[in-house]
Amino acid sequence: MTGKPQIHLAGMYFAPGAHIGGWRMPDAIPESDMGFEHYVRLAQTMERGCFDALFFQDIQAVPASAALEKGDTYGSISIRATCLEPMTLLPALATVTKHIGLIATASTTYNEPYQVARKFATLDHISGGRAGWNLVTSQNENEAANFNRDEHLEHAKRYARAAEFHQVVTGLWDSWEKDAITRDKATGVYFDYSKLHILRHRGEHFQVRGPLNVARAPQGYPVIAQAGSSEPGRDLAARTADLVFTAQHTLGDAQAFYGDVKARAARYDRAPAHIKILPGLTPIIGRSESEAREKRALLESLIPDDIAIMVLMQNAGGVDLRKYPLDGPLPELPASNNAKGRQQLFTEIARRENLTLGQIARRQASGSGHLVLADTPKGMADLMEEWVRGEGADGFTILWPYYPTPVDDFVNLVVPELQRRGIFRSEYQGKTLRENMGLPFPTRN
Amino acid sequence: MTGKPQIHLAGMYFAPGAHIGGWRMPDAIPESDMGFEHYVRLAQTMERGCFDALFFQDIQAVPASAALEKGDTYGSISIRATCLEPMTLLPALATVTKHIGLIATASTTYNEPYQVARKFATLDHISGGRAGWNLVTSQNENEAANFNRDEHLEHAKRYARAAEFHQVVTGLWDSWEKDAITRDKATGVYFDYSKLHILRHRGEHFQVRGPLNVARAPQGYPVIAQAGSSEPGRDLAARTADLVFTAQHTLGDAQAFYGDVKARAARYDRAPAHIKILPGLTPIIGRSESEAREKRALLESLIPDDIAIMVLMQNAGGVDLRKYPLDGPLPELPASNNAKGRQQLFTEIARRENLTLGQIARRQASGSGHLVLADTPKGMADLMEEWVRGEGADGFTILWPYYPTPVDDFVNLVVPELQRRGIFRSEYQGKTLRENMGLPFPTRN
Repeated sequence: MTGKPQIHLAGMYFAPGAHIGGWRMPDAIPESDMGFEHYVRLAQTMERGCFDALFFQDIQAVPASAALEKGDTYGSISIRATCLEPMTLLPALATVTKHIGLIATASTTYNEPYQVARKFATLDHISGGRAGWNLVTSQNENEAANFNRDEHLEHAKRYARAAEFHQVVTGLWDSWEKDAITRDKATGVYFDYSKLHILRHRGEHFQVRGPLNVARAPQGYPVIAQAGSSEPGRDLAARTADLVFTAQHTLGDAQAFYGDVKARAARYDRAPAHIKILPGLTPIIGRSESEAREKRALLESLIPDDIAIMVLMQNAGGVDLRKYPLDGPLPELPASNNAKGRQQLFTEIARRENLTLGQIARRQASGSGHLVLADTPKGMADLMEEWVRGEGADGFTILWPYYPTPVDDFVNLVVPELQRRGIFRSEYQGKTLRENMGLPFPTRN
Repeated sequence: MTGKPQIHLAGMYFAPGAHIGGWRMPDAIPESDMGFEHYVRLAQTMERGCFDALFFQDIQAVPASAALEKGDTYGSISIRATCLEPMTLLPALATVTKHIGLIATASTTYNEPYQVARKFATLDHISGGRAGWNLVTSQNENEAANFNRDEHLEHAKRYARAAEFHQVVTGLWDSWEKDAITRDKATGVYFDYSKLHILRHRGEHFQVRGPLNVARAPQGYPVIAQAGSSEPGRDLAARTADLVFTAQHTLGDAQAFYGDVKARAARYDRAPAHIKILPGLTPIIGRSESEAREKRALLESLIPDDIAIMVLMQNAGGVDLRKYPLDGPLPELPASNNAKGRQQLFTEIARRENLTLGQIARRQASGSGHLVLADTPKGMADLMEEWVRGEGADGFTILWPYYPTPVDDFVNLVVPELQRRGIFRSEYQGKTLRENMGLPFPTRN
């Protein structure tokens, strides 16, 4: 790469924090439930820091609900019990921000494409072209139980459904050409029939006639993000995603993933620069290295052992890890119908670093499986610059360990360091999320 | 009724206006699509007028899409082609208003109860207790074609599903008691397991385990509105609704409906005062009676004949009314699987007033089947007061013929007349929609 690379940043909400002990920090938001006014303040802080986008992860269930139903006592010290629904929250945040992109997860497993197409097109209208859809297949078996199913959909089927879902949603977004609604008072002609495209989709998973009852979105298509790292996940991303969220722990792994996804994109006749790869990063920021280390130790001390094990068990293929000693090794795990990539990742880390079950559990719980970096602003900027210059990343998805201090610290300390180096914007250049991220405007019609 | 009755007002959005010729008025909003900034201005105007609530009707389809697919040329002069999605729009409007209730339609036919429960609970949090859900069964055959079905669900089945849907949604709203989320930093206990209620619903139409992943809503349950006027519709409303929207054209009919629904409520052990009945009213306001008449004539002149007929055909049980002469009588219609109440209503009006097919079509198209009143502010207040004193209504759902002038006129001219008579508030008394409407707070746990 020649010249100065430009880093893209997405700030992820993950109530009550990506670090599972974070909410217990003395400076964490004290309310029993994080109220809307906190979301407003955080969004405005990230916008002050010129972040490309906010990004809301989503699960349509209380993650621990199967265990809770069985009366498992760990439940009462579980977290992520409740939060606000992202697609209801984002339009409200659109009105109190001006520039920052607004991305939310919507599952292709437990949604209907007509509804997803409508909601994101509407959010794009309300926000003036700042909407993004994180297209996921549901990984959480607890969701199935809230959607009339006894069992979770099998991995390969989920991806086939996801691909068709994407086809329907983008087809619906193409219903109306930009100037189709003419609304001519004199003649009474409301729209130009020749600029209306009726989808008439009849596929294996969906029958959707269309047209969409929302006018063409300002961005044409809202930005599409994906996070799958399995084979079918990477392939779908290479074909259809503008952004890819991923969990990478070393520059080497990041480069391998980056190179693989960009090469796949090229095979689908897409410019590799038009798919942005943003690995996750949980920052623990200290004014000095020792302050950062102390914060990290404090955070880890706030994770109860049984919670750490339960978090790991969510991707352990049904194995009850509570039966194994904490100071022994991670046992062999059967292939999981859940997030395959996630399980492979933590298994590799545990083997490579020779971690005990307790250590890998705590590591995973600290960053929700993503890289946790305890460092000074300079050290953090060094790693980010190295990964972006080294073609391991186009930027990062920042997972806040808790709220609000880490958001304030990152914007006040790390962002200026990136700006001084000339590798991050000091003001928004574009009007839309696509423009700010250097993504093309879809031009199907 | 003794003392002064208090009128409740809901303002209905029905893009681009409840009067099908309204958008062609010289003072109608000129843009090809009504932008978000217009919605903001209208919401703030209604709040200035102390309206109890905004109310968004919804259809998950372009209403004319079956005809459009067949290439029917009337399509290009159809309206209601596109609008913003209500549950994406309302959270955004919540941030630019402080008092007014925010009600949106969500169909029980093409939605999942877990998602509806989440969205309205979240809207209730974001708005500080101002959310309302208009529970409907889908009447529009065009929706089926966007949701993987070739045929629309049969009327009785839709109501059975709606009743079970309501049971699941309210059950999910009861997942967490008010003080269930304790979030005790010192002990690490996030919530009180004894205050969590797992639904475990296994019914004919739905299997939903729960719990909901949203904390208890400020109103306990968001307000529930309904609009069914068929037998099963009235029964479901009497059992479960806080508000009832209805189309009534004479005080006598309104009194009969009002008495019937309140009596049914009493049979279900509900206080009749806790179910508010708000018939629809499309106001055409003139400073003088002649000005009102002229406006009405201008509006009717803006409805093309073929559009009027097409609107009527939406509830004509599949009969192609274009084959009948406009100056002849309304033909006999077969029972429709669509809105039974609507068809019965316009058939009765046509017979009673001896209207031609063209006349009843234009009448229906003028007010979307609701009462259209062209009058002075005083005349309008007279009718409203008479209906409320006469126990035909607890207030009205105002359907704006177009935007923005009729909204401004109603708030500037009719509201002060109601206030002078002491039958409408001059400021909001309560904090929540339930408080402002005199509705009880649900107390199941």
